[in-house]
Amino acid sequence: MRAAVDALAEPQPALAGMGRYHLGWVDESFAPVDNVDQGKRMRPELALLCCQAAGGRLEQAAPLAAAIELLHNFTLVHDDIQDRSPTRRHRATVWTLWGESQAINAGDALFAAAHLALYELRGRGVDAERVLEIAAAFDRMTIEIVAGQTADLDFERRADVTPDDYLTMIAGKTAAIVRFAARAGATIAGASPEAAERFGEFGLALGLGFQVQDDLLGIWGSASETGKAEADDIRRKKKSLPILLLRQRTGGDNSAALDRLYAQDEIDSSGIELVLALLAKHDVRPAAEALVRTYHDQAVSALLVAAPEASPARAALLNRIELLASRSK
Amino acid sequence: MRAAVDALAEPQPALAGMGRYHLGWVDESFAPVDNVDQGKRMRPELALLCCQAAGGRLEQAAPLAAAIELLHNFTLVHDDIQDRSPTRRHRATVWTLWGESQAINAGDALFAAAHLALYELRGRGVDAERVLEIAAAFDRMTIEIVAGQTADLDFERRADVTPDDYLTMIAGKTAAIVRFAARAGATIAGASPEAAERFGEFGLALGLGFQVQDDLLGIWGSASETGKAEADDIRRKKKSLPILLLRQRTGGDNSAALDRLYAQDEIDSSGIELVLALLAKHDVRPAAEALVRTYHDQAVSALLVAAPEASPARAALLNRIELLASRSK
Repeated sequence: MRAAVDALAEPQPALAGMGRYHLGWVDESFAPVDNVDQGKRMRPELALLCCQAAGGRLEQAAPLAAAIELLHNFTLVHDDIQDRSPTRRHRATVWTLWGESQAINAGDALFAAAHLALYELRGRGVDAERVLEIAAAFDRMTIEIVAGQTADLDFERRADVTPDDYLTMIAGKTAAIVRFAARAGATIAGASPEAAERFGEFGLALGLGFQVQDDLLGIWGSASETGKAEADDIRRKKKSLPILLLRQRTGGDNSAALDRLYAQDEIDSSGIELVLALLAKHDVRPAAEALVRTYHDQAVSALLVAAPEASPARAALLNRIELLASRSK
Repeated sequence: MRAAVDALAEPQPALAGMGRYHLGWVDESFAPVDNVDQGKRMRPELALLCCQAAGGRLEQAAPLAAAIELLHNFTLVHDDIQDRSPTRRHRATVWTLWGESQAINAGDALFAAAHLALYELRGRGVDAERVLEIAAAFDRMTIEIVAGQTADLDFERRADVTPDDYLTMIAGKTAAIVRFAARAGATIAGASPEAAERFGEFGLALGLGFQVQDDLLGIWGSASETGKAEADDIRRKKKSLPILLLRQRTGGDNSAALDRLYAQDEIDSSGIELVLALLAKHDVRPAAEALVRTYHDQAVSALLVAAPEASPARAALLNRIELLASRSK
């Protein structure tokens, strides 16, 4: 990962500096830091574990893991501009420090660097044909992410978004990279296309389950555990799955009241109480929880078919799936 | 090119629509059009000619040409956001029609699609190892472009930019893609690394010469031929090469007067007269013209070493170089 970002430094030190800042390696004057939150790195870890679970060696998948993490961070840099997010991981975002234009450049450069990391698979003994296959899947996956982000931005101005629209959107924006990580990790290990496809199904279900659980926590999570205000997603008017399920279930009833609430800039505490009461009345929480359990079960089934033999890597992956049922932050 | 953009349509029709609009294939309601300026396509043409001049077949280089044109258009979509450009090729820019956020997505998607086009080289009988080599060069070249754009934006707020800084910047922002097109075209034809490198030198000199000539036309071009106002680059306060040469040559003299002029939003006609008089006094135009001739000569020398045998493709390339000396629009 560091080698790929170093490739930005020779033509333009500031470009590498913005990338390293975003990744949590340096401060805003580009001096090294070692006490900064660098994110959970869930996606690259998954690629490594799937490579191992499919019988491959960890070292072979390292360039893949680096490419995935760089790609994820490219999308975050651009998302932060699009969402006008002032902070990420408790630090100022790239665009707030260097402006939107330079943040667009920083994201573009990380995207290019992600490819350079990926091509390094060739140097780890992965066949050139297979590297090209993985690279094509990598760009198709990126298109799915960008398509999901396009839909998400479009949802903000639409009143007719359905739960199905939402699940299609997060399948791209959130879950496509998890699916790719699992599938490509297995491909590097030499898995058959069919086995790699099962790993991909496991990743897709895990990614979808993770996002829906995130939506649950955004409304019913404990503030002390999530580090956000109670019902934060209601206050910020996020059209997350529970709200879309509620819209679908209320039909005509209460929709005028909801429209009035969501026409405000921010929803106040009495409004939050009303939405919580409607969510309870229409049994939205158990419906969303059932969906998480469905994705949980799909992820387990796909993984057990993909990796029929028990191994420490498979156990670690099963453990990740269990977090879907128990995660509280 | 169309196949690569089609890859955006399945996950998100609007994403493909914005890309096709920018490329001049559809109107803003995504209906096909056939009377729209699609740009000069100089870069992909150069890749095809260099492939032929190095003894290769045109069909083999088609995916390369598509990838180069898609990449170029990705950078234009993002540049238009950064430069707040309202129009391009006589039409509204993507960001003015769909907003900055969706324009960021449209550019990102074109960048991913450019890679998909490039990987198609494998299907044209280019060896997988060679495709990977070209792909790595493609991403390194993109980093050079983004680094150049980063420097260019930075120059706007700096008062101490030298002609050398500027030439380094355009070597990335403008000439890197021309260098890559020439070099990769030759590589596909099976040229040795040394011969491909000479093609790259030809491309670099051509790209640099083209940009400096553009700068000359921006100040001394005839309005009837360029389609822009006379001395348009002075009016818009562009820090192009002639202005930077003037700054260097005036030293302390007149620099206060220039500072005052360039502190205005736009330079009026008496200001333009003053700048033109200073440019004449300090012999800036002959200096810039001499530089174009130097790049012209470098391009010819490199091409004759790269392609020692006469061929129609080489003749066409020599003709492109001659435009450096005679182009008036």
